[in-house]
Amino acid sequence: MEKWVYTFGAGKAEGKATMKDLLGGKGANLAEMCNLGLPVPPGFTITTEVCTYFYNKKHTYPASLKSQVEAGIKKAEKIIGKKFGDNQNPLLFSVRSGARISMPGMMDTVLDLGLNDETVKGLAKASGSEHFAYDSYRRFLQMYSDVVLGIHSDHFEAVLEKIKKRKGYKNDTELTVDDLKEVIKQYKAIGAKFKNPVPQDVHKQLWGAIGAVFGSWMVDRAVTYRKINEIPSDWGTAVNVQSMVFGNSGDNSATGVCFSRNPSTGENIFYGEYLKNAQGEDVVAGIRTPQPMNRAVKKRTGSTLPCLEDEMPKVYKELVKYKDKLEKHYRDMQDMEFTIENGKLWMLQTRTGKRTGAAALKIAVDMVDEKLISQKTAITRVSPAGLDQLLHPTLDPKAAKKKIGMGLPASPGAACGKVVFSAKDAEEWVKRGEKVLLVRLETSPEDIGGMHVAEGIMTARGGMTSHAAVVARGMGTPCVSGVEKMSVDYAKKTFSIAGQQVKQGEFVTIDGSTGEVFLGQVKMSEPSMTGNFGRFMKWVDSTRKLQVWANADTPADAEVARNFGAQGIGLCRTEHMFFAPERILHMRGMILSITTDARKKELAKILPFQRKDFEDIFKVMDGLPVTIRLLDPPLHEFLPHTKKEQEEVAKSLKISLVAIEQRSEQLKEQNPMLGLRGCRLGILYPEIYEMQAKAILEAAVNMQKKGVKVIPEIMIPLVDYTRELEMMKAIVDNTAEQVFAAKGARVKYKVGTMIELPRAALMADEIAKVAEFFSFGTNDLTQTTLGMSRDDAGVFISVYKAKNIFLKDPFASIDTKGVGQLVETAALKSRRVRKNISLGVCGEHGGDPDSISFFNKIGLNYVSCSPYRVPIARLAAAQAVVNK
Amino acid sequence: MEKWVYTFGAGKAEGKATMKDLLGGKGANLAEMCNLGLPVPPGFTITTEVCTYFYNKKHTYPASLKSQVEAGIKKAEKIIGKKFGDNQNPLLFSVRSGARISMPGMMDTVLDLGLNDETVKGLAKASGSEHFAYDSYRRFLQMYSDVVLGIHSDHFEAVLEKIKKRKGYKNDTELTVDDLKEVIKQYKAIGAKFKNPVPQDVHKQLWGAIGAVFGSWMVDRAVTYRKINEIPSDWGTAVNVQSMVFGNSGDNSATGVCFSRNPSTGENIFYGEYLKNAQGEDVVAGIRTPQPMNRAVKKRTGSTLPCLEDEMPKVYKELVKYKDKLEKHYRDMQDMEFTIENGKLWMLQTRTGKRTGAAALKIAVDMVDEKLISQKTAITRVSPAGLDQLLHPTLDPKAAKKKIGMGLPASPGAACGKVVFSAKDAEEWVKRGEKVLLVRLETSPEDIGGMHVAEGIMTARGGMTSHAAVVARGMGTPCVSGVEKMSVDYAKKTFSIAGQQVKQGEFVTIDGSTGEVFLGQVKMSEPSMTGNFGRFMKWVDSTRKLQVWANADTPADAEVARNFGAQGIGLCRTEHMFFAPERILHMRGMILSITTDARKKELAKILPFQRKDFEDIFKVMDGLPVTIRLLDPPLHEFLPHTKKEQEEVAKSLKISLVAIEQRSEQLKEQNPMLGLRGCRLGILYPEIYEMQAKAILEAAVNMQKKGVKVIPEIMIPLVDYTRELEMMKAIVDNTAEQVFAAKGARVKYKVGTMIELPRAALMADEIAKVAEFFSFGTNDLTQTTLGMSRDDAGVFISVYKAKNIFLKDPFASIDTKGVGQLVETAALKSRRVRKNISLGVCGEHGGDPDSISFFNKIGLNYVSCSPYRVPIARLAAAQAVVNK
Repeated sequence: MEKWVYTFGAGKAEGKATMKDLLGGKGANLAEMCNLGLPVPPGFTITTEVCTYFYNKKHTYPASLKSQVEAGIKKAEKIIGKKFGDNQNPLLFSVRSGARISMPGMMDTVLDLGLNDETVKGLAKASGSEHFAYDSYRRFLQMYSDVVLGIHSDHFEAVLEKIKKRKGYKNDTELTVDDLKEVIKQYKAIGAKFKNPVPQDVHKQLWGAIGAVFGSWMVDRAVTYRKINEIPSDWGTAVNVQSMVFGNSGDNSATGVCFSRNPSTGENIFYGEYLKNAQGEDVVAGIRTPQPMNRAVKKRTGSTLPCLEDEMPKVYKELVKYKDKLEKHYRDMQDMEFTIENGKLWMLQTRTGKRTGAAALKIAVDMVDEKLISQKTAITRVSPAGLDQLLHPTLDPKAAKKKIGMGLPASPGAACGKVVFSAKDAEEWVKRGEKVLLVRLETSPEDIGGMHVAEGIMTARGGMTSHAAVVARGMGTPCVSGVEKMSVDYAKKTFSIAGQQVKQGEFVTIDGSTGEVFLGQVKMSEPSMTGNFGRFMKWVDSTRKLQVWANADTPADAEVARNFGAQGIGLCRTEHMFFAPERILHMRGMILSITTDARKKELAKILPFQRKDFEDIFKVMDGLPVTIRLLDPPLHEFLPHTKKEQEEVAKSLKISLVAIEQRSEQLKEQNPMLGLRGCRLGILYPEIYEMQAKAILEAAVNMQKKGVKVIPEIMIPLVDYTRELEMMKAIVDNTAEQVFAAKGARVKYKVGTMIELPRAALMADEIAKVAEFFSFGTNDLTQTTLGMSRDDAGVFISVYKAKNIFLKDPFASIDTKGVGQLVETAALKSRRVRKNISLGVCGEHGGDPDSISFFNKIGLNYVSCSPYRVPIARLAAAQAVVNK
Repeated sequence: MEKWVYTFGAGKAEGKATMKDLLGGKGANLAEMCNLGLPVPPGFTITTEVCTYFYNKKHTYPASLKSQVEAGIKKAEKIIGKKFGDNQNPLLFSVRSGARISMPGMMDTVLDLGLNDETVKGLAKASGSEHFAYDSYRRFLQMYSDVVLGIHSDHFEAVLEKIKKRKGYKNDTELTVDDLKEVIKQYKAIGAKFKNPVPQDVHKQLWGAIGAVFGSWMVDRAVTYRKINEIPSDWGTAVNVQSMVFGNSGDNSATGVCFSRNPSTGENIFYGEYLKNAQGEDVVAGIRTPQPMNRAVKKRTGSTLPCLEDEMPKVYKELVKYKDKLEKHYRDMQDMEFTIENGKLWMLQTRTGKRTGAAALKIAVDMVDEKLISQKTAITRVSPAGLDQLLHPTLDPKAAKKKIGMGLPASPGAACGKVVFSAKDAEEWVKRGEKVLLVRLETSPEDIGGMHVAEGIMTARGGMTSHAAVVARGMGTPCVSGVEKMSVDYAKKTFSIAGQQVKQGEFVTIDGSTGEVFLGQVKMSEPSMTGNFGRFMKWVDSTRKLQVWANADTPADAEVARNFGAQGIGLCRTEHMFFAPERILHMRGMILSITTDARKKELAKILPFQRKDFEDIFKVMDGLPVTIRLLDPPLHEFLPHTKKEQEEVAKSLKISLVAIEQRSEQLKEQNPMLGLRGCRLGILYPEIYEMQAKAILEAAVNMQKKGVKVIPEIMIPLVDYTRELEMMKAIVDNTAEQVFAAKGARVKYKVGTMIELPRAALMADEIAKVAEFFSFGTNDLTQTTLGMSRDDAGVFISVYKAKNIFLKDPFASIDTKGVGQLVETAALKSRRVRKNISLGVCGEHGGDPDSISFFNKIGLNYVSCSPYRVPIARLAAAQAVVNK
């Protein structure tokens, strides 16, 4: 007989962690915890093969499934000492999906299964709480009707709202037992009306729920999700049927969440919080402030509430034992859920714990020192986003501060902004250029938008695992949660802490690493790159293959980039250099000139400025390559647009206003992105590129004479045709010979090109015969390959994401299938004709970890990103090697 | 001893036509004429292998070359009875390059080689004209100095100008013998000044010229030309050294150009013209009006000048014999040059004759009937541009006309336009929307731009082979040349013929097929597609593999397309249908609506109009496929742009002006080409595509019920992602089911997509899983692949052509290497997943012969072009098969 059901419970399981394909991720991990001897509520997993059978055989089950499920129920009953459908002390089940790969929110769950008009009485008796039992029954009816029977929750919510309104209740919790019984009666009437009542037979309930979970594998959203994530639909889902345990069975019960190390700082202390006589969602919801796990946590958070270590010392010790076991077993910081039901500890879940960047770094380095993990593994333990947090500023310790309050250090980093009290306000204020601090009693999912744009978040309620805390950590936004003695008046738009009132629009500063709240703006200082950070980045650098260069247009940018570990400048845009007041006039004069000679005259005046810029950049980048792109943007970008500016220019240049207007009109383009720019300018006005080449090469020779090691790489933008590059290279080479002759010295330099048009990528083998390096300009390559203007696509990109046309904005993360295919093809083709060609990326994707992983895979030489992203790119490049 | 030199002359040659690789095109053809027994001025060809030797061995020659050249000279001397360097009756040579493939204007030529201070006297004596001899010497010194010695012609022209000014001459021809001697003296002084005189030793002259021709193989322009045309540089050029003969040796001498059939009509009569006592360039320059070849030509042109048949009957008979021989030998109409020197006929050249479209068609069909060529060969004998001429309108024979003059029928077709007198005016007037007729005394190469934009060309001077005539025929532009009794006053901008004065801006009509000139606008009629045309197109259609469809948006267009032989509609744009006055208001109302419901309401009002359009198109295209593209352009194109229009719309739609302004502003885009358009509209506003699908399918069912065979193909534009197409296909399929249910009848339909973005081409294998057909939108694919906006690229495309970055405007003829690579890849990939997918092209390249040849090569199913291009596309498709 084939095995369709794998049981777990009482310290052993038929499955194990490595059986994810068969049992799904959740089932395999429950089995693993059992095998480790941890107390897991017993249950069983119906395998993914049943799902495949279900779909291949017209929604039927294998013949032997029924008896195996029944045996699974029996086994659970025996272990837990309750009976499924029992009127006295009924065993309830949760029924959950569980695929090989997590598909969050895609499939259905049913809780409290096994309740009916009789068993609810038994539950009331056994738990000692009628309110608990009837509330559970109400919830079960609603959930089951929605998930299994397809009656929308709205029908049930309406009943609830009506009663609450009649009774004048604000919260569901105010409903009395009699209210709940009335609700249940009306819920059943809904079932009758739809001719689809929840079965009283608990076995029918169970099979209904199993069928619903299998059915949810093929609903639209799941099918789409799999298609996009390339998950084969024949993998199927498993179904986990597990005994329910209740942390809300009285004062000897509790439920909690804990971490094997501090998820905020990484410190190796057992961290966590719990609520007595409560259910799991009460902790997450942040409505009651949870108690600290132990004395150490109490001390660090300054909590005055009693801790588990003191309240239930025996259970606490058991929990510590399991925590140690799990961390050692999984070799990573664990995030665990537990429930204490009448003094008995149950482990409900363990998983890798989310953590702040600082914590990730400390844990990774500590675990290497503890010999738990290798350096290579450590590299994968800090996410690029996490590392980003470490690059955030902290409060200057010497700055004067007025501390007005204290909360939990929910997400690290310091932040300062004008106080606003709603997510909507946050978004509006930021749109008009303000920096805001979002202050809420507690946050909920609809606040995401405002949380995203805020400098920092502060809440009056909620613990370290509250919505605000979890979301803020994920975003890398500083957050202080559960600020003590804080009251918020949304109507008046004020908050007060211990008599200190703060109005909307006033500045407040928070420190998410300590939980402190300060009035006004507090001076911040740059993060330090030493200690653990330095050790970690050494491992990173010795692992990665991709070099990391930076995009930097000024000596100051170059300096920052170099400090952050950039190995060169991959993109130095020269156009920004033309905008300084003393230069823009000559630039405009050049553009407004009719003859080549007049243009040359104006260009000659710009040359000394450009040469000075390049000298300074070469100096900063001593010994490292500096890739300078010749003029790229359309000329009209440089012209004055307002009448007033035009008049000024006319006066300065002694030309008529009409001439300026005419030339502006002439240079206007329908689609400037696809117009007269890049090397097309160099073809039409060779004197521009001549001047730039001269400035670069004179600067290079000058600095070399001063002992600087200069490595100039001159980059021609927007090449389509090999001949364009040949012509532009000839200009550079001729200019170089003139400069070298005049200066009596030579420097080595390279001439290469941006690959930023599909044609250039397709013709890479031809272009590489002339180009000494390629730099993929993936911004423009994305615009042209997808036919999407970055300036205009905003209106549909969000819709496209919402409709799952793409998962990620292709301007943020490279479209590997389309744009990436072009980059890969070009890399292959170019190396075929010039084996040692240097290949880099200078688009914004150069700082995006997923894109970096792709560029590593296809074997490019470097990515170039903004200076502040350099450490993140270094890490991403190393992770790409380790994860290969 | 290796053979480096091949002689020809006196009825035999060492080479032949098939030895082009060794002797170059020119050398091989001279040899062939000799072998046919024709009198060719004797000479010899130095092989291309010498050129290769020259470059491989540091500009030296093979040891035995010298003696072989000397033997060649001896042989020529013997045949012609003159001696090279002789003081009494000197033999002069022309020295010309000649590569395997013609590289027009790329390399150098030296004429009259062999003149020096002594031989010039001999030439004067032998020719009986001192003036001729010294003028030849002057020309030789100038040409040799420029080509061989590198002293720019400007230095010599300055001398000439100075003397002419001093003497008050207008033309070079006014120079007396003494003037010429003075000029020669000063020319020699220039040579002395540059320390680089023309050698007096004629053998030194010859070796200098040979070296110069070989050297010209490697000059920049030649290297670039070869690179672009992919001609290997090791092919080398040959050097042709040929005896000079002189048609200007007196009244018993002449020079002429003739055609074996009438190049204008194709009629099988011997055609041509000549000038007595003249040189070849005098005929081409059109300064003297040439005499007709024979009585038949005289009759047809109405010339009153004596003809060769009457003036030199013996020579004429000989010429007729050669003409017959050459046409039979080459099996094509020949264009021959001849010179009569003192009564002796010399054949200087024969080549395939250029001809009008009408002539090409008649000659091809006649030669098939004469069993000279096969039908397949006939297909290659009519160029697509030639066929285009046949599609031009002709004057309505019944129309009232006021004939004011008569000239030569230089290029067929009727044309009408406002008279202008300079190429510059022509270009300017056309730019502002006028149709012009360019009137000139005679035309020259700098008039090309104006000739190109003019409806027709009329000249006072010049024959059938004048510059104006040749160029106009090449362009397919109607032309009447050599209009009798016509005077032109450029200053006053008028012309008059026999007292009738016409001012700039007045309308004139010409008939290039008859030579007639009419005052005012004459009614024209459509060309006939029967007779020879019908027979020829049958051969074409039975040969080609590509289907030819048409782009047609209206029933009228569809009708024209079908009459021209279109096999389907490949692109029916629906957006034009929205612009009719009764519809645009609803379209604007739809765009200005905020809610989906409001949009649907407006769309419902447009639906009946669209349905009616589709019904009419289906009716016309009964039995043929009709590909309808759903809405493509950005919505802002439909909104009113002027204040006045906006006010009107506000009033009609009862919305505020502000709302219209805001929405217009909102919809504005930086790069509309890359913005919210194509299926992106369908994703954001599915109701638009729903309405269109409904209109198409209702129309299809309605017409099918009336017995029309409907084959609707619904095309989704601008797809990037497979999922976009899936979503849009779902809308069409759902709508179809609703329509079919409501109508109680079904029609077959296809859903496919435009491939017009590089990503779509790259992902063709994925997209083809959903698409039932692909239509390559090569206009947009070119814009995105090249990153060039068609609207903006005008300013640099001409520069790019001039600088040889590309040979052809990539919007006119497909960029096969880049854009074509994408199309080919997509075709391959799509057929891999859907073997029978239908692949077509609906961009403008669908009507371009070179592009059609490419599309045939890569195996597409059809091209779709504008209705008037359909016959041309049919021909190009057949030629692609024959030339494969």
